[in-house]
Amino acid sequence: MTLSTEVYSNISLAEFLNLPETKPASEYIDGRIYEKPMPQGKHSILQTRLSTNINQVGESQQKALALTELRCTFSGHSLVPDIAVFEWSRIPTDENGEIANRFESYPDWTIEILSPDQFPNRVINKIIFCINQGTKLGWFIDPNDKSLMVFQPNKLPEVKYNADILPVLDVLSDWQVKVVDIFSLLKIK
Amino acid sequence: MTLSTEVYSNISLAEFLNLPETKPASEYIDGRIYEKPMPQGKHSILQTRLSTNINQVGESQQKALALTELRCTFSGHSLVPDIAVFEWSRIPTDENGEIANRFESYPDWTIEILSPDQFPNRVINKIIFCINQGTKLGWFIDPNDKSLMVFQPNKLPEVKYNADILPVLDVLSDWQVKVVDIFSLLKIK
Repeated sequence: MTLSTEVYSNISLAEFLNLPETKPASEYIDGRIYEKPMPQGKHSILQTRLSTNINQVGESQQKALALTELRCTFSGHSLVPDIAVFEWSRIPTDENGEIANRFESYPDWTIEILSPDQFPNRVINKIIFCINQGTKLGWFIDPNDKSLMVFQPNKLPEVKYNADILPVLDVLSDWQVKVVDIFSLLKIK
Repeated sequence: MTLSTEVYSNISLAEFLNLPETKPASEYIDGRIYEKPMPQGKHSILQTRLSTNINQVGESQQKALALTELRCTFSGHSLVPDIAVFEWSRIPTDENGEIANRFESYPDWTIEILSPDQFPNRVINKIIFCINQGTKLGWFIDPNDKSLMVFQPNKLPEVKYNADILPVLDVLSDWQVKVVDIFSLLKIK
């Protein structure tokens, strides 16, 4: 397996942020750099369609915005969640009212999709880090198992399957979504 | 991948318990039967040596007992943790003072070792179920990643690596063990 490769060690966060961006993106965690896996079909379609669905609910009333492969730098880490969702009021803007380039805070909701070549604990650890810094909700999606583990502050995670209803951000609470709805996004025919 | 195979559905717990035992063991979870994976080298040596280590600390002063592949039936589930640890006072005995055959309660500490052919969320869900029923501590060991996720009641899990010290049962608190100590059990030469 080629797994979340550790590329460099012993580099500062400032030095890391000055390096050119890579594809796939690299992340800075506990003083080390890890390269994200090259996305494959199931990962890519879930990332694309799920962020679209979230934005269909969140953008119309300026409640929340889902962004894919966004670098979020906070609390000494620089993470690139598969999907980072920000409540509207927390989206950083520049002097022209446009979205800022640098995101220097945690997302309100972080979503990670397990790739076949990733270590689950590494990915889960990123979600737990976010939650401990202020993120309200984390989803860990395993397309192989058609399961989704939900993380919220100060409690054990919950593993959801099939018709289980999934918690979403409070600002999106009009939207009711089940585990099957997420994995139906994989269907082409 | 041949993954935690679902064998039967729609069978009662009593009916399940009347079925002959299988090798590898089967588990009854949410009304369905799942067959555990056939253990491989890394899984087997961790299970064997770690239970030995726990018992070296726990048995001498009758504090706790680690048991491998023990069927624990409680709260409508019948689980077979890779290692189930019971505090001494909670080990069920028969009229002769011998250990009982049937364990009808949760272990105090449950340890699961991820096999290459298992879904992580399925395995983690077993640990979370135990903790929600009264288990005080859960370890989820990923030999690939040399990482260990720790579960305790009413809090987010923690992922531990390298020199991180691991929580153990309070009755075993004389024993200090690090993540590297666990994975050094894999070494033959």
